[in-house]
Amino acid sequence: MLTNLFLPRLTVVGAGPGDPELLTLKGARVLATADVVLYDALANEALLTHARLATVKIFVGKRRGFKGFTQDEINDLIVEQAYRHGHVVRLKGGDPFVFGRGREEMLHAERYGLSTEYVPGISSAVAAAGSLGIPATHRGLSEGFRVLTATTANNQLSAAVAEAAQSPHTTTVILMGMSRLSEIMALFCQHGGADVPAAVVQDGTLPTARIVTGTVADLAAKTARAGLRAPAVIVVGEVVRLAINPADAFSPVDHETLLTQLLPYANVA
Amino acid sequence: MLTNLFLPRLTVVGAGPGDPELLTLKGARVLATADVVLYDALANEALLTHARLATVKIFVGKRRGFKGFTQDEINDLIVEQAYRHGHVVRLKGGDPFVFGRGREEMLHAERYGLSTEYVPGISSAVAAAGSLGIPATHRGLSEGFRVLTATTANNQLSAAVAEAAQSPHTTTVILMGMSRLSEIMALFCQHGGADVPAAVVQDGTLPTARIVTGTVADLAAKTARAGLRAPAVIVVGEVVRLAINPADAFSPVDHETLLTQLLPYANVA
Repeated sequence: MLTNLFLPRLTVVGAGPGDPELLTLKGARVLATADVVLYDALANEALLTHARLATVKIFVGKRRGFKGFTQDEINDLIVEQAYRHGHVVRLKGGDPFVFGRGREEMLHAERYGLSTEYVPGISSAVAAAGSLGIPATHRGLSEGFRVLTATTANNQLSAAVAEAAQSPHTTTVILMGMSRLSEIMALFCQHGGADVPAAVVQDGTLPTARIVTGTVADLAAKTARAGLRAPAVIVVGEVVRLAINPADAFSPVDHETLLTQLLPYANVA
Repeated sequence: MLTNLFLPRLTVVGAGPGDPELLTLKGARVLATADVVLYDALANEALLTHARLATVKIFVGKRRGFKGFTQDEINDLIVEQAYRHGHVVRLKGGDPFVFGRGREEMLHAERYGLSTEYVPGISSAVAAAGSLGIPATHRGLSEGFRVLTATTANNQLSAAVAEAAQSPHTTTVILMGMSRLSEIMALFCQHGGADVPAAVVQDGTLPTARIVTGTVADLAAKTARAGLRAPAVIVVGEVVRLAINPADAFSPVDHETLLTQLLPYANVA
């Protein structure tokens, strides 16, 4: 199973929430057998060191000022590269099945005869706030959690957000919501949640992590004042009370060095 | 940072959903520096090979016929072992902050002077069903997901389950719900969800994975007929339509052999 047979195939791999050490062992092994890696803006580029030097690495994300690939273009690229080179790894920030369109890309690839596989990743939905002491669930504070994006396909504020606002005993995590933060918090306020603790976490799991905590009523203003930016996660719920300071969360580990020292096996497969 | 100083400390590590290759690189590194590992029933024992031979390994989970440790006993054991041996790793199935009481154990340890760290794990909430083709979210089918347990602390069917039953556009994942499967499905039926696709996944991410798919109306009966057992995840939502057969999901990889071949670095720290 470890030989790199020529077989057009796609493995969709979760890159995790930012810290490159939060890749899975399986993700590292799969990257080492890739002929082509197509990677996202949210996937930490340090992870590309797991792939061989000869592996074709193509950035398919969106960056400020550059027109990114459309989803259709990415789908086509996967199929084309797999028939040209063999094993395509699609490296996606977080988990490919959490707002990652991973299954969509697999279904498209399967229609063109590729075999496909899914390798889960650590989602920032749990780990980003978790790395600053905020658990998704906690006895006495939260009996479950929900994960949403702020907007639906047609750019409306999601009905799921309104629903979440009515449910104070469940932690709500909102991804890709920074540009609508004020509106989202206003919606929670309308449903009587003004005093519920809330936080924005930027760069969770990384040494550059920043956090703003407050209540639903004041979070948007405090976040603007602190200058936090996307990508970031928004968390609403009593669990936010357990947050810790980034200075206490991250020891000064040099991740590049760690990867180099500890992962020579990444190129042996 | 890689030397094993004597410092009473606790690292709470997510063991992932079953497949031992779904441990993170960081989890493997941390296990290799442990003086003591306290592990759960849900953590795959193959992961203990990442720890040194000299590391004290203590099973603190519950097994049929044996009285497990209480949460208070585990909390005390963490502190006692850390002062006796140094670095305690608490290895928990899935993610420690998803119904894992990870933050609780950290807070207790901090009160006794230990420094603490959290290493996220792949939660079965997304990965178990994901490994059989069912994504947590999928454009056109689901605009978010929620993760619940079936029962609250006082053994009542959770209010959050009733709430989820009224929300067909969000995927619902229920952990630790197998003993209440009929009741849960009845609650979804009451809210008009009888025809919504639903599935039970046992041993997700493992070669022994089994799945039963159906609708909210017939899932409990089909699951009983197939003989699926806990631990398993229950998924309700349109995304279940994308499920695949376990035979197509898992190639016959020998995980023990893989760990031995690919992870010599686990004992070098």
